[in-house]
Amino acid sequence: MIFPFTAIVGQEEMKIALILNVIDPSIGGVLILGEKGTAKSTAVRALAELLPEMEVVKDCPFNCDPDGFLCNTCRERLKREGHFDREKKKMKVVELPLGVTEDRLVGTLDIEHALKKGEKRFEPGILASANRNFLYVDEVNLLEDHIVDLLLDSAAMGVNTVEREGVSFTHPSKFILVGTMNPEEGDLRPQLLDRFGLCVQVTSIQDKALRIEILKRRADFDSNPQGFLKAWENEQKALSQKIMSAKERLNSINITTDILEKIVDITSLLSLDGHRADIVIMKSARALSALRGKTSIDPEDIKDAAQLAIRHRLKRLPFEEIGRENEKVKSVLLGIG
Amino acid sequence: MIFPFTAIVGQEEMKIALILNVIDPSIGGVLILGEKGTAKSTAVRALAELLPEMEVVKDCPFNCDPDGFLCNTCRERLKREGHFDREKKKMKVVELPLGVTEDRLVGTLDIEHALKKGEKRFEPGILASANRNFLYVDEVNLLEDHIVDLLLDSAAMGVNTVEREGVSFTHPSKFILVGTMNPEEGDLRPQLLDRFGLCVQVTSIQDKALRIEILKRRADFDSNPQGFLKAWENEQKALSQKIMSAKERLNSINITTDILEKIVDITSLLSLDGHRADIVIMKSARALSALRGKTSIDPEDIKDAAQLAIRHRLKRLPFEEIGRENEKVKSVLLGIG
Amino acid sequence: MIFPFTAIVGQEEMKIALILNVIDPSIGGVLILGEKGTAKSTAVRALAELLPEMEVVKDCPFNCDPDGFLCNTCRERLKREGHFDREKKKMKVVELPLGVTEDRLVGTLDIEHALKKGEKRFEPGILASANRNFLYVDEVNLLEDHIVDLLLDSAAMGVNTVEREGVSFTHPSKFILVGTMNPEEGDLRPQLLDRFGLCVQVTSIQDKALRIEILKRRADFDSNPQGFLKAWENEQKALSQKIMSAKERLNSINITTDILEKIVDITSLLSLDGHRADIVIMKSARALSALRGKTSIDPEDIKDAAQLAIRHRLKRLPFEEIGRENEKVKSVLLGIG
Amino acid sequence: MIFPFTAIVGQEEMKIALILNVIDPSIGGVLILGEKGTAKSTAVRALAELLPEMEVVKDCPFNCDPDGFLCNTCRERLKREGHFDREKKKMKVVELPLGVTEDRLVGTLDIEHALKKGEKRFEPGILASANRNFLYVDEVNLLEDHIVDLLLDSAAMGVNTVEREGVSFTHPSKFILVGTMNPEEGDLRPQLLDRFGLCVQVTSIQDKALRIEILKRRADFDSNPQGFLKAWENEQKALSQKIMSAKERLNSINITTDILEKIVDITSLLSLDGHRADIVIMKSARALSALRGKTSIDPEDIKDAAQLAIRHRLKRLPFEEIGRENEKVKSVLLGIG
Amino acid sequence: MIFPFTAIVGQEEMKIALILNVIDPSIGGVLILGEKGTAKSTAVRALAELLPEMEVVKDCPFNCDPDGFLCNTCRERLKREGHFDREKKKMKVVELPLGVTEDRLVGTLDIEHALKKGEKRFEPGILASANRNFLYVDEVNLLEDHIVDLLLDSAAMGVNTVEREGVSFTHPSKFILVGTMNPEEGDLRPQLLDRFGLCVQVTSIQDKALRIEILKRRADFDSNPQGFLKAWENEQKALSQKIMSAKERLNSINITTDILEKIVDITSLLSLDGHRADIVIMKSARALSALRGKTSIDPEDIKDAAQLAIRHRLKRLPFEEIGRENEKVKSVLLGIG
Amino acid sequence: MIFPFTAIVGQEEMKIALILNVIDPSIGGVLILGEKGTAKSTAVRALAELLPEMEVVKDCPFNCDPDGFLCNTCRERLKREGHFDREKKKMKVVELPLGVTEDRLVGTLDIEHALKKGEKRFEPGILASANRNFLYVDEVNLLEDHIVDLLLDSAAMGVNTVEREGVSFTHPSKFILVGTMNPEEGDLRPQLLDRFGLCVQVTSIQDKALRIEILKRRADFDSNPQGFLKAWENEQKALSQKIMSAKERLNSINITTDILEKIVDITSLLSLDGHRADIVIMKSARALSALRGKTSIDPEDIKDAAQLAIRHRLKRLPFEEIGRENEKVKSVLLGIG
Repeated sequence: MIFPFTAIVGQEEMKIALILNVIDPSIGGVLILGEKGTAKSTAVRALAELLPEMEVVKDCPFNCDPDGFLCNTCRERLKREGHFDREKKKMKVVELPLGVTEDRLVGTLDIEHALKKGEKRFEPGILASANRNFLYVDEVNLLEDHIVDLLLDSAAMGVNTVEREGVSFTHPSKFILVGTMNPEEGDLRPQLLDRFGLCVQVTSIQDKALRIEILKRRADFDSNPQGFLKAWENEQKALSQKIMSAKERLNSINITTDILEKIVDITSLLSLDGHRADIVIMKSARALSALRGKTSIDPEDIKDAAQLAIRHRLKRLPFEEIGRENEKVKSVLLGIG
Repeated sequence: MIFPFTAIVGQEEMKIALILNVIDPSIGGVLILGEKGTAKSTAVRALAELLPEMEVVKDCPFNCDPDGFLCNTCRERLKREGHFDREKKKMKVVELPLGVTEDRLVGTLDIEHALKKGEKRFEPGILASANRNFLYVDEVNLLEDHIVDLLLDSAAMGVNTVEREGVSFTHPSKFILVGTMNPEEGDLRPQLLDRFGLCVQVTSIQDKALRIEILKRRADFDSNPQGFLKAWENEQKALSQKIMSAKERLNSINITTDILEKIVDITSLLSLDGHRADIVIMKSARALSALRGKTSIDPEDIKDAAQLAIRHRLKRLPFEEIGRENEKVKSVLLGIG
Repeated sequence: MIFPFTAIVGQEEMKIALILNVIDPSIGGVLILGEKGTAKSTAVRALAELLPEMEVVKDCPFNCDPDGFLCNTCRERLKREGHFDREKKKMKVVELPLGVTEDRLVGTLDIEHALKKGEKRFEPGILASANRNFLYVDEVNLLEDHIVDLLLDSAAMGVNTVEREGVSFTHPSKFILVGTMNPEEGDLRPQLLDRFGLCVQVTSIQDKALRIEILKRRADFDSNPQGFLKAWENEQKALSQKIMSAKERLNSINITTDILEKIVDITSLLSLDGHRADIVIMKSARALSALRGKTSIDPEDIKDAAQLAIRHRLKRLPFEEIGRENEKVKSVLLGIG
Repeated sequence: MIFPFTAIVGQEEMKIALILNVIDPSIGGVLILGEKGTAKSTAVRALAELLPEMEVVKDCPFNCDPDGFLCNTCRERLKREGHFDREKKKMKVVELPLGVTEDRLVGTLDIEHALKKGEKRFEPGILASANRNFLYVDEVNLLEDHIVDLLLDSAAMGVNTVEREGVSFTHPSKFILVGTMNPEEGDLRPQLLDRFGLCVQVTSIQDKALRIEILKRRADFDSNPQGFLKAWENEQKALSQKIMSAKERLNSINITTDILEKIVDITSLLSLDGHRADIVIMKSARALSALRGKTSIDPEDIKDAAQLAIRHRLKRLPFEEIGRENEKVKSVLLGIG
Repeated sequence: MIFPFTAIVGQEEMKIALILNVIDPSIGGVLILGEKGTAKSTAVRALAELLPEMEVVKDCPFNCDPDGFLCNTCRERLKREGHFDREKKKMKVVELPLGVTEDRLVGTLDIEHALKKGEKRFEPGILASANRNFLYVDEVNLLEDHIVDLLLDSAAMGVNTVEREGVSFTHPSKFILVGTMNPEEGDLRPQLLDRFGLCVQVTSIQDKALRIEILKRRADFDSNPQGFLKAWENEQKALSQKIMSAKERLNSINITTDILEKIVDITSLLSLDGHRADIVIMKSARALSALRGKTSIDPEDIKDAAQLAIRHRLKRLPFEEIGRENEKVKSVLLGIG
Repeated sequence: MIFPFTAIVGQEEMKIALILNVIDPSIGGVLILGEKGTAKSTAVRALAELLPEMEVVKDCPFNCDPDGFLCNTCRERLKREGHFDREKKKMKVVELPLGVTEDRLVGTLDIEHALKKGEKRFEPGILASANRNFLYVDEVNLLEDHIVDLLLDSAAMGVNTVEREGVSFTHPSKFILVGTMNPEEGDLRPQLLDRFGLCVQVTSIQDKALRIEILKRRADFDSNPQGFLKAWENEQKALSQKIMSAKERLNSINITTDILEKIVDITSLLSLDGHRADIVIMKSARALSALRGKTSIDPEDIKDAAQLAIRHRLKRLPFEEIGRENEKVKSVLLGIG
């Protein structure tokens, strides 16, 4: 049984960043900075648990969206049989093991099947299980570079194409990438950092009352999980509906040139390289606005979205200049609100 | 034949920490600091030997608890056959070999069976044998990081899920993790240290009379093991019953807000990061109180539990400040009692 | 759906360099310098999308050109059957994974087929899929040296011959090699650099109006891809026709001794080693002239071609001399125009 | 043909240490310090040759002692057939190759048998051949740590249990571990050193008469081995009987508290860590006393046993204190005699 | 189609060194120093193309010379059938891939055949394909030492004997070894350098007229290869006949003691180690004399041969002495002419 | 065809050391110091060629001596069939490839045979082919330590016993180990050096007349090998008979105590560690005396033998003391003569 998302004390930034990605998965995932032991993976699992089931093609190992881009098998089935059955599935959290190989990640040829039946068949990899789910990568900075590359490419394209020994297989691979990283243990190269949509920092809570509250909720949950879930049922439902409604209304929110100008102002003033920051702030602001029940983006949405989108894109500075940089960020963001 | 637990001379802290984990396995294991040659593995084996047999599903390679969470096979058997037979098994000590691979740890696909019968079948790993047993990891600091990670994740979740080539298998994997570590030989990263519930230090005994006693008992045991076991039989039974009774009464002991406040006081004053210390002290104090035959937790239980729970969570300090830190710990703990 | 090539804002140098290689693939590819996140791979994919389909031998895994050099299988088929069917295929972008092995790159023996049927058969590698396509190598400086060597040799010869266990197989392997490289992360050895035909540098756009334009186009494309493609359809067709016409007229453009002298003047004055720069400038100038609809090469074509061909062939200089070198390049090129 | 043990010139300490382990194998082996070329392996082989044959279960690959702890196969055979035949075997010297793998050391699953017959069967490793023999490890300090660990664990437990893919196999693995080590080439960690029962140092003989004697005996042996063996036959038989008789009388020698006190005095005065030194001195003194034909341990036995047991357990000291330490050892040992 | 050898502009030293090895393959190959991009591999391919076909045993994978030393298979065929058919084959250029393994180089057991037919059969390696051909090793200094060793041993012996699992196979392996090396990238050990017969240095041509000539010939060849080949046909035939005639007349040229003295004078004055320089100069001078149509060796031949044979055998000197050394070489060689 | 041993110019020390090992293989091989290109391997091959054929058990892959220690197979055949046929074989030179694995060296299980026939069978390794032959190890200092160890152990024991998966196989493995080593490229550890019987240094010949002689003989041999061999036939036969006669008379030469004293004098005065030097000088002096046709050892034999036996056993000294050490060696050896 999983601790309810709404019962997690504090860590609001992380929770919002995860929710925004559920509302618009093209935001590109979240990088969570912070030490182990701050319930990061618990939060992601809890969010997956909270969301309603999604509709998938029955028996498809890739969780194909019956109304979306289909994998090779589903496409052939549709051609052959004219339709397919649907079923409901819970979103889940797929973990990427440290030391994963390329074959395990993207899938490979099913050797056993080939040897026994003489046909080549695709053996789905982790990117297959991850489709339409969370892909959780603990300590992403400890992965080998070429794996991070594959991961981020796939996250960006939403499609995984594997070619092995003359067999080519394509399946959708849209997932919400959640990476964690302890900045004290090595680093990601700037161009990889840039490819995570958002970035938040989590620290353990120092407030004594909150800590007692955490402990109390934990003790309550441990001694009587069913009762605890019951007690939080309404809060859970409310948040779930709020998220699903925001997801639906997302495309109805207009992005005006005025909004775009404000966004480019921010990234220009902060001299961010590349164009990803612009795009991510745009999308996150829209998702935030939808979550907040609004029909148009306002400066507050932009400011809050920027907060989540720029932390990992700022130039790394010598220690003495960090303070000045933070001042600059503050004043830039103040300028919009 | 195994030397009786109660005949082990000294090392009280280690013995208590192990017993508390038997009473409440969710405390999260023990990390034992100290050089080789201090009978650590002997103590764990002796404690397993002391405990009564437990009830398991007959022929289940995972030692499934018939009344608890079941592995895939047991679940299917229960569905198919409506019931299963039970048998009694001794708890055992499973050792994790240095250099263990991920497949060996979590289990993998049974290639041989797949090749011969054309069915995919799960080949249980060490986490399967470890279910409901002790998992003993000598020199845990020499393990590769991703293995320690897998181990601690599994210890935390109590469940092991393996996905290989389209086969997914889930089995309970609840074990008492006992790690040993010689602090002079490399270290664990703080976030891994934090995930061991308790931590004790063992040193060799300097008292001459005790050393002669150790030697005498050893000589007695070596020359006539049966006689020696006979002589200690009553002590063994008494401790075994005391532990089992504490285990049963555990949930009846109340955790009041007053108790939680005392715990948070300790961890706040010592500025411990994260929330695990709070939870471990809470659970260990309750287990201690139960072992001591009490019906509610008193400050002495908290103080003793904290002693076991904080050693590995204190910030590492430059040499000259260690003394001051120890003073601080003492005065903080004194403040509760 | 792919963002249209003509809708990409800025990056003219990169776009021209790619187009010149489509017009005359013997120019030898492009090395793109610049950080990730500057839409390099997007541009290549977009260019492939823009081009018309090409004619290939039906079912040939090497995309053999029915009127060009044939692979072993096609040659045998032609001998056996007297003719072969043709089909149309889109040019595609083949990505070279980091960590690719030699066998995977050049192809190898099909072990499965050998074991089952007792015949040795060639298993095509990435160089086979790359024939007549783009071969995109992200971060080419992170590849192992012997892989870069194989790649460049194959790019130079246009043919891949594999000998394994007594089986020899030859197939055409003509591709447009596009390598990217972040100069801050290691370097290529000068003799490898020299083997890329052209070299361009991309940087993110700083102009605010352009950045808003990028964002706008992106938002438009994301919210209504079909509509966006429709809007750019004419621009796309126009460029496609311009490229194909240049390709056809290429051989009709004369290279006079006067032109050759101008080229050797440039490379002599800049003391470039080897003879590749001469050849690449000659070919690029001719392709540029064809693209510009001219019937003969003029100094402007040479100057612009030289611009693209010499950046990576200049001697690496100590910092203080780079300025002077740049001045020299400028004045040398000015001297021709 | 093997050079007779009794004809080896000098090296008395090494010879005694080996003999004591034959009398009481639970002493825990010998670590021999010294350069190559000092006939260490010759001495071990010669001692094995000298000893009478031992009784084993017929055809058992583990040399099971018919009257001792049995391997799985013997146990099943005994259950199935009610008895087993016995045969006589010479003790032998099993060498551990440098670079040995874990599977090779502890044994593994017999893949060939599994593939052909579909049954899993245990493939015995070196620990199987070593049962009841000498296990000779040249340059033990060059072994990988986890192999040394496995070796010492097995030496300590006398049993080897292997679990591979659901098959568990247990066999006795009691051997006399003889390790050699050139202290100039790396070192063993103190906790590993501590697990060798005894430690002796061998150096080449400087005395000229002895060297001529060595050369003479060697020339005699080389030119007429049979004659040489004949000449030493009586000496060989005498020593063999002395050892076997000591082995039989071992348990009849009493260990009084007075003796234990003397032993703890020594280890306390020398501040040795852990309790192994106590136990080893106790056992070696008893074996020495038996070898010397006595019925009780006297101070001389303790002193001589301590000499062999403490060399590798003394704290490593800076150079200038080694002299003082040696003085201390001398005076401590003098104090008992 | 291959660019004609005689149309290659400049690089006379390299061209002569290659030709001398064709005339007398026992000279021992050529090491070419110089950067990539100087058409080294083009020159070797062009020379192979220029030479007439050679007679080989039909279907022999080792290109056995019907009148020379035969491989095992040919020898058995000859014994069994009394004769074999002959066919004509073009000499080819076999490239040694960087990272080649020993098995791939020398050949190995054909596992597939062994498994399927139960017979052991030799699987030829690169040394088999290289027999009577050029073996081209790009960047020979980047090969692993034991591969270079195998290569040079085989080059020296002219025979490759492989023993694997009880099967021994011998085949001729006489090839002209051409290694290239960029002296700026690591070095070969002196004893390996010494085993290349000759050594030449190539640099790119600075003369402007020659560069334009190169470019012109290249442009001509690219736009109309057939026409270009036609234009050079006579030059090609003339050189081919000159080489073949020199090869035939080689043994008729006498080596007088006077000649030998001159050679030893050179190597003694230059203090070259070992005796290989003597032998190589002797053979190269004879081949040069034959190529020049003479009937006896004259001082000019020795001087020119020495030029090619000593560059890589001179002691490496500190920078300031290189000039003096060069003077010495010059004056030594002047002394003969 | 092989260049005749007797026609090799100079290098007397190396030639004598090799011959002494043929006369008494228990001397323990030769370590040859010197750069490549000094015809070391040529000399060994030439000596093998010179020697008469030896008698072996017919078809035995181990070249078992019909009158000596037999391999398992021969022993079983002899038991089964009562006798075996004999055949004559040339001694050969087996080369140890750099990078050889343990399995390849000592032999292993024949997997192919096991899979196909279900019987375990021993697959002979290099130590099998080496039996009764030369084992030539080029650059022995580049071998991995555990391979050198195996090699020297086997050389010392004359027997190779392999145990793999329950199969134990023993075969004689007596070979003359010839190692070469360029002292400028790494070193052997002293204890490995010590295990080579003799050690000689070869350098290239500086004398001009000798160099011309070398070149002349080489040119003669190359242009007419048969004729050359004919010319040297008598010299070859004479040396071959001298060696075989010395081999037969070896055991008849007495080693008196007086001789032993002289030997120990030398090694004591030079403070050589261990006892191997004594034994090797004794055996080499006897072999020398036999080669020289004498019936007893005289001081000259000892002095010459010592010369070959002590070079690699002297303590390594700081540069300034080498001269003094050489003086000491000279005066010590002078003292005997």
